[in-house]
Amino acid sequence: MKIVFIVFDGLADRPIKELGNKTPLEVADKPNLDKLAKRGINGLLDIISPGKRIGSDVAHLSILGYDPYKYYTGRGPLEASGIGLELNSDDVAFRANFATVSEDFTVIDRRAGRISEGTEELEKAINEIDIGVDFIFKASVAHRGVLVLRGKGLSDKVSDTDPHEVGVKVMEAKPLENTAEAKRTAEIINEFTRKVYEVLNNHRVNVERVRKGKLKANMILLRGAGRTPCFEPFKERYGINGACIAKTAIIKGIARLLGMEVIDSREDFMERGKQVFEALERNDFVLLNIKEPDEAGHDGNYERKIKIIEEADKMIGMFLDYVEENYLVVLSDHTTPVSFRDHTGDEVPILIAGPEVRSDDVTTFSERSVYKGYLNRIRALDLMTYMLNLTNRLEKYGA
Amino acid sequence: MKIVFIVFDGLADRPIKELGNKTPLEVADKPNLDKLAKRGINGLLDIISPGKRIGSDVAHLSILGYDPYKYYTGRGPLEASGIGLELNSDDVAFRANFATVSEDFTVIDRRAGRISEGTEELEKAINEIDIGVDFIFKASVAHRGVLVLRGKGLSDKVSDTDPHEVGVKVMEAKPLENTAEAKRTAEIINEFTRKVYEVLNNHRVNVERVRKGKLKANMILLRGAGRTPCFEPFKERYGINGACIAKTAIIKGIARLLGMEVIDSREDFMERGKQVFEALERNDFVLLNIKEPDEAGHDGNYERKIKIIEEADKMIGMFLDYVEENYLVVLSDHTTPVSFRDHTGDEVPILIAGPEVRSDDVTTFSERSVYKGYLNRIRALDLMTYMLNLTNRLEKYGA
Repeated sequence: MKIVFIVFDGLADRPIKELGNKTPLEVADKPNLDKLAKRGINGLLDIISPGKRIGSDVAHLSILGYDPYKYYTGRGPLEASGIGLELNSDDVAFRANFATVSEDFTVIDRRAGRISEGTEELEKAINEIDIGVDFIFKASVAHRGVLVLRGKGLSDKVSDTDPHEVGVKVMEAKPLENTAEAKRTAEIINEFTRKVYEVLNNHRVNVERVRKGKLKANMILLRGAGRTPCFEPFKERYGINGACIAKTAIIKGIARLLGMEVIDSREDFMERGKQVFEALERNDFVLLNIKEPDEAGHDGNYERKIKIIEEADKMIGMFLDYVEENYLVVLSDHTTPVSFRDHTGDEVPILIAGPEVRSDDVTTFSERSVYKGYLNRIRALDLMTYMLNLTNRLEKYGA
Repeated sequence: MKIVFIVFDGLADRPIKELGNKTPLEVADKPNLDKLAKRGINGLLDIISPGKRIGSDVAHLSILGYDPYKYYTGRGPLEASGIGLELNSDDVAFRANFATVSEDFTVIDRRAGRISEGTEELEKAINEIDIGVDFIFKASVAHRGVLVLRGKGLSDKVSDTDPHEVGVKVMEAKPLENTAEAKRTAEIINEFTRKVYEVLNNHRVNVERVRKGKLKANMILLRGAGRTPCFEPFKERYGINGACIAKTAIIKGIARLLGMEVIDSREDFMERGKQVFEALERNDFVLLNIKEPDEAGHDGNYERKIKIIEEADKMIGMFLDYVEENYLVVLSDHTTPVSFRDHTGDEVPILIAGPEVRSDDVTTFSERSVYKGYLNRIRALDLMTYMLNLTNRLEKYGA
């Protein structure tokens, strides 16, 4: 028996006035999700604990059964893993953004006009900077990148340079503990920030951008300093091979650190469904992350959220036969209300379908339809155990 | 106000195709359980946490409010206590099975053809073996027994000799930690294994068994090494006298270690009900374990499970008056699906009836009827506190 998790990123929402106080999931036409809700068991899921507001990285750790309070060491190392960088245990990694700043380092745009080309050249120039310590800067998709400081004598206890808003200055990195290593690392980061501006501000790529009326990518904003957490591999922990299909670097980064097969999600929804079934040929567990509902939430666009649900629902139809013999879990990794345009800690709906579930009376899948379901309310950290039990894979504790 | 727990061992099941995707509890005719469900509060119970797969020993510790993660030290000492052996704190106890092996120690039958007589003589022969350390071997019911190694310099960190399957050789006991005590204990166990075969293989009892076409009881398989956990007595912890009525040695063993009154369960169901009321004359708390549903589950026999529920339900009728003034809890200690023939970690149904419960809309007692009940979903470790509260016995925390 196989196990598939379909994680709709930021799917859950709050009642929206324009939708008659319904959520996108409540108004969307999604016959296949509803069929699964009818056949399965449903309930509310606390990804961490009631109300706890989290990122998708923390959410996916919890969903995969790795307690974030133990394993989450910051965004940097997960991003680094996500773009394929192998980190040593002493390395300190940061999530990085190309940004636009004025001469006095006031942030004009945190994403450098969502720069989409020329970042390899800028990356090359950055890597030639001398800050007195080995480092790797790697640009990834669009404005995104990762900075890794390498070697002994560093600390991950330093604050972000990213002010997380525009119109204010780039922050000075500060040591977050009173150690020589933290002070040294903060100094290195501040020097990096100054030198990056020197190297990038009049770089050929930026001269060209200005000529085209685009914002300069003349700063790197850093956040989420961390060392790589030491994970027990997925295979060792659960005794089965697992794969993860995702677009987002940080989700892929988690999967890679767990030793799972990492697969780049295709664009077309039906193709993603096919990717799941291909991955199931080599794995007993597959997690598919669907990023788009979260993006629609961040954009405050409920119409797009509804449309995505309806598109994705067609792909869900590919699993109606599958659940005759295998198990499917559909959930949201957190709520991203279009009203708030960011994640909130509201509990999310979950459904589990498969051959031997004690099916309940729920007939549709939504935030409010599931609360009367069989599962009542469970926590994400128990989910892997719950599914290994349903597929009869657990060792017995006691006699 | 008295408190009675009726624990149906392995009662809960999964939907069964042959029963129209219903469970034995859903199809059984059980008017008295249903009456109690109507009058009481109902819900789902996680014995440990969602999906966690456990044995009845761990389950009963949790149901009685003793956290298994703290108190469970293996099956051996609970079995030893169950057959009335008093253990010292240094002793290491093993659950033992009479088994049948070939000359090269390949296991032919893990229960020696479910031997039912002559084990006292074999026990005597075993106790005369010299393995360089004091020990007690005690045969209990049928193929079952206990080995206790006595004295200082022993360890409970040794592996089982029981391979848990037939057609493979008796396992060599191995030290599970790198200590002189663990190595010594493993050596003692391995010598015990060799000498047991020497003494039993041509023993008069076995010669006689062969003559009658039965399997020899020429080996003792050992498992579940452990030292006696140090329990706070039931009476001290809860301030009330408790009794436990059971057939299974390991359940009785737990009760004895908790200082509860231990009563051998009679065969007839109505007699068991009488035993509960007799025990209530001397105790404020009585737990009755009903073993048969679990046996039916292990045998994969849903018809028998249904029949047992219907028989037991008549006895449940004895409690309809009782709950006017006192409290009754009915639960399953784990799920034993007839499809899987062993325990699974699925949540179980629970009902609580008594004079002041906030009764709900549930009208029948089953895995799926209770999920909409008042209790929602609770954990076994909270159950004793819950019942002490309902019977107004708790001290106030705070002012």
